[in-house]
Amino acid sequence: MTREELYRNIMRKRSFLCVGLDTDINKIPQHLLKEEDPIFAFNKAIIDATADFCIAYKPNLAFYESNGLKGMESLYRTIGYIRSSYPDQFIIADAKRGDIGNTSKMYAESFFGEMNVDSVTVAPYMGQDSVTPFLGHDGRWVILLALTSNKGADDFQYIKDSNGIPLYQNVLRRSLEWGGNPDNMMYVVGATRAEMLTDIRRTVPDSFLLVPGIGAQGGSLADVCKYGMNSKCGLIVNSSRAIIYADTTENFATVAAQKAREVQHEMSSYLK
Amino acid sequence: MTREELYRNIMRKRSFLCVGLDTDINKIPQHLLKEEDPIFAFNKAIIDATADFCIAYKPNLAFYESNGLKGMESLYRTIGYIRSSYPDQFIIADAKRGDIGNTSKMYAESFFGEMNVDSVTVAPYMGQDSVTPFLGHDGRWVILLALTSNKGADDFQYIKDSNGIPLYQNVLRRSLEWGGNPDNMMYVVGATRAEMLTDIRRTVPDSFLLVPGIGAQGGSLADVCKYGMNSKCGLIVNSSRAIIYADTTENFATVAAQKAREVQHEMSSYLK
Repeated sequence: MTREELYRNIMRKRSFLCVGLDTDINKIPQHLLKEEDPIFAFNKAIIDATADFCIAYKPNLAFYESNGLKGMESLYRTIGYIRSSYPDQFIIADAKRGDIGNTSKMYAESFFGEMNVDSVTVAPYMGQDSVTPFLGHDGRWVILLALTSNKGADDFQYIKDSNGIPLYQNVLRRSLEWGGNPDNMMYVVGATRAEMLTDIRRTVPDSFLLVPGIGAQGGSLADVCKYGMNSKCGLIVNSSRAIIYADTTENFATVAAQKAREVQHEMSSYLK
Repeated sequence: MTREELYRNIMRKRSFLCVGLDTDINKIPQHLLKEEDPIFAFNKAIIDATADFCIAYKPNLAFYESNGLKGMESLYRTIGYIRSSYPDQFIIADAKRGDIGNTSKMYAESFFGEMNVDSVTVAPYMGQDSVTPFLGHDGRWVILLALTSNKGADDFQYIKDSNGIPLYQNVLRRSLEWGGNPDNMMYVVGATRAEMLTDIRRTVPDSFLLVPGIGAQGGSLADVCKYGMNSKCGLIVNSSRAIIYADTTENFATVAAQKAREVQHEMSSYLK
């Protein structure tokens, strides 16, 4: 999906919501456990209920891998379902991969080929040759970790070099030297540090930012938009638990739809 | 596996070799392609041929994921085979994972539960809560990326903070504050920078180091031992391509065994 297509979807739906499919067999409604593939059954119901209110889905691979081969089957089935039923949805494999060049190349083939997602989150620690193999796939995206939403983000991401530049800024700057641009690279920036978005926008004014940490993690959507929005939206805001686990009865999908609609409604007010 | 058990295996076999199972369907001998699961057939032959000369196997997950569900089946089958046929082998899932706390917890369950490996490589960028969920699993290990063997390692890992401490040293130091110790944490240190091992040994004198980059990537085993070995060996040295792809005829396993034996022979001379 191109940046222009993504932007058009956002304006048409008046939403830049991404629903995080962090599907945990221990948290889904009990009645689904009798299904042949409870994880997929849950995802399908959530997707059908929320597709009108969001423009992206983000399965986090850990939740699927933790169920072994069966979990991976549920993941592939989920991606296939989104692709066939809602082809305008942007799919993010939240995998946080990154390895030496020839191995990252394998990962890129895996995600953009076999798995057929639009984008994959990539960790920057191993530098250029761990990231660039994910670039150059037409209409596919790297979403590079810059400033994450967890407590541990403080450990390394803010460490300043001898010129006073924090690591997350060095990551942004180097990524631009590697051929990352607003049409093939986005950045993860946690909502829990919305005021940092001003600083980040100076370095990557036109790039999309994937913002986790809204909802259960406590970030404010108003602040994210205030500091992070650009003239073409430039934001994909993720919510996982606050939507998909809003209710754990047989009514879960209806409540998830309500929650997604509420977020979409608020988002609409921030879009020009 | 405990550190003491690992050390005993090393002394008994006079080897600290890890064979990297970076198995690529495009690089394995042609005649295996007629097998039902060519990747597993290749791995099984390599394992049977090299098990006497190594103490660990390290499948890199990218190579399996790139074949989708079928690839993951090959991986699980390979791990199961090592577990049942060679229970004294230390298994490393080279996955370079790392995510927010509750997600890293899922990954830990995946690798130490479902997949049943001894250790998993973890990327440090997201800090403490991305790493600690992998700790506290008895006899299981985190192998934290410190200084990698690829060119991109220069991009961030050497960036010095305002006190002149490079990022990889900050990673080592913080990991010790998080409860990492020589019995539950190892570190990835590339062989291509063997002289850096002196610096690393000052911070983690007793810890095992997983050293990739021997062989195809050009690192010297003599240098690694000179700068990195401690009184209980403290080294697991990985070789992948130089062993598993040493020959691509029907004779591949015999040649792989020869190559592994050569490395083991050299290693033996460095062990006290």
